[in-house]
Amino acid sequence: MGKITIIGAGVMSSAMAFPAAENGHEVYIVGTPYDRAIIENYRVTRRNDKFDRPFPENVHFDYIEDWQEVVRGSDFVIGGVSTMGAEWFLEEILTYLDPSIPVLVVTKGLRATDDGSLFSYPGYWVNELAKRGIHRDICGMGGPCISYELVAHDPTYEALCGMDSDALRLMKEMLERPYFTISLTNDVIGLESAVAFKNAYALAVGIVIGMNIREHGADATPRYNSQAAAFAQAVRETHMLMQLQGGTWDSETVGLGDLFVTIAGGRTRACGILIGEGANSDEVKEKLAGNTLESLVITKIIGKAMRKKAELGLIDLRDFPLMMHVVDLLDREIPDTALPFASFTFTNLKEI
Amino acid sequence: MGKITIIGAGVMSSAMAFPAAENGHEVYIVGTPYDRAIIENYRVTRRNDKFDRPFPENVHFDYIEDWQEVVRGSDFVIGGVSTMGAEWFLEEILTYLDPSIPVLVVTKGLRATDDGSLFSYPGYWVNELAKRGIHRDICGMGGPCISYELVAHDPTYEALCGMDSDALRLMKEMLERPYFTISLTNDVIGLESAVAFKNAYALAVGIVIGMNIREHGADATPRYNSQAAAFAQAVRETHMLMQLQGGTWDSETVGLGDLFVTIAGGRTRACGILIGEGANSDEVKEKLAGNTLESLVITKIIGKAMRKKAELGLIDLRDFPLMMHVVDLLDREIPDTALPFASFTFTNLKEI
Repeated sequence: MGKITIIGAGVMSSAMAFPAAENGHEVYIVGTPYDRAIIENYRVTRRNDKFDRPFPENVHFDYIEDWQEVVRGSDFVIGGVSTMGAEWFLEEILTYLDPSIPVLVVTKGLRATDDGSLFSYPGYWVNELAKRGIHRDICGMGGPCISYELVAHDPTYEALCGMDSDALRLMKEMLERPYFTISLTNDVIGLESAVAFKNAYALAVGIVIGMNIREHGADATPRYNSQAAAFAQAVRETHMLMQLQGGTWDSETVGLGDLFVTIAGGRTRACGILIGEGANSDEVKEKLAGNTLESLVITKIIGKAMRKKAELGLIDLRDFPLMMHVVDLLDREIPDTALPFASFTFTNLKEI
Repeated sequence: MGKITIIGAGVMSSAMAFPAAENGHEVYIVGTPYDRAIIENYRVTRRNDKFDRPFPENVHFDYIEDWQEVVRGSDFVIGGVSTMGAEWFLEEILTYLDPSIPVLVVTKGLRATDDGSLFSYPGYWVNELAKRGIHRDICGMGGPCISYELVAHDPTYEALCGMDSDALRLMKEMLERPYFTISLTNDVIGLESAVAFKNAYALAVGIVIGMNIREHGADATPRYNSQAAAFAQAVRETHMLMQLQGGTWDSETVGLGDLFVTIAGGRTRACGILIGEGANSDEVKEKLAGNTLESLVITKIIGKAMRKKAELGLIDLRDFPLMMHVVDLLDREIPDTALPFASFTFTNLKEI
């Protein structure tokens, strides 16, 4: 049996301990400096309140000052930091970690360069490390994975991405369970992009739902024609964006599955509905207090990058009326603008 | 201003009278022999109970015996028969209708040939008429269109398909409204197929929702990881099926928008949930009494055709594990079989 070290004790990375430990591996969860109280609690209770069962016996909990000792001999490391912790993870962990130990990060999001290129967090770390003379791969994860569902053995379907195919195969081997199925791809930018784009489009459909509630009331029969129109356009625009990113169709399907459930429930849907109902950004923040609105952050990053690309003549923003409508709503705080449905139409007619 | 004759007084074709009449055209709704009571009621009340407003004044109602007189001078005809009425529409209407008058049908579904080819209702009528020496096009409609939402001016997005581009442009011109946006395509088989495949895949996701309810109870937090897995696989299989059908990507996006809302609400979702909860087909029929389960009918047609194609070596059923799982459930009445999630994975790795 093997050894896996998880750095970061958030719910997502903590949940990953379950399939790994159930496969018989020794799993070490090392908290970041912000996770000290979580580790203390894990040591005492062996539980996370969000999960329906305690950690298996072969999961161990450690503080950050011991990470270098703990990580020694690991088959691979899981990095469980949020985008806020990306620099810390680079400076304090990746810079000192043995490059022969593969790394899988659960961090999701995109970063943008000044010329409007969008790149992934694995790509960011790989580049920054290369500048320091450290050459290694970083693997990423995509697909919807609600942590407590994974722990509860609900069927969960994820894709892992990276350039190091052997590392990916090892991770799949050690993590896969009957309820946890894993696809593998070298398409890092495609997978991370597909999963990021869904944030903007889930907001878009949420906005349509919110506008319907505003017009017909919360108790009225839900209206579906307009949701379908927005979803179809989301699929169309996602496809064009994926082609710009050079992503594969398989990665795109993972993103569309994620889009579907992000609309079905959760914070991003709630946020979109509030915007559609007419809330301004302060009201949205107040009503969703305590929830990080990653979907708003990532949508703004994508929107800014797309505007830059359009300035450079690389894309035509009229090809992305739904994305740009959402970006405009977030920027200009015009919460009551109807969607530009007419711009969603296509004409595929032979001229004869 | 123009003239449109609608043959069939069901809710969908009756709803089409609203945008047409609001554009100033004279609209004549002619009931089929089964619609006599509906026409009588329309004449007295000028209302359909499902709609939030009466028919505009320029909508007229006629009985079937007068159809040939009424239809004279129409810019085009809308055929509003169900698949059950397809032969009647062929024998009694299309065979006698002036071939210079374009026809748009709202009938949805697919028919199968003995060798497992799936073809559309417009294609069926065009072929049958050609056998009789009548050469004309029949246009179709795709995309989710809940009739009472269209009447209520909720934003609705449809695609019209046909070989006759001029007829399609005329229909768009006469039907489009600010709330009713229309795309046009020559891709008849693609559009009709995309819209048909969604029935099977909406059942599939409904089954996953039902299985979660069975396991965790109806009041439990919904489970999303498994729904996302099924949806992503539905997108993947739809794409392969569309390529087999020679359909375009634009048509596919209309079908995926339809898939999304068919899962969100309605009969097909309810049917899938019942199957997932463990109901057998008799129980499903009883609980959904009064509702035509078109989704079951079309899924069985598709499944039978795919099995035939596989027998002929034209497809490999292992490429369609989700579709075949649903088809097997319907055929064999094994309502409690878990989805084959492991068969949904992909491996896109360079060998280096």
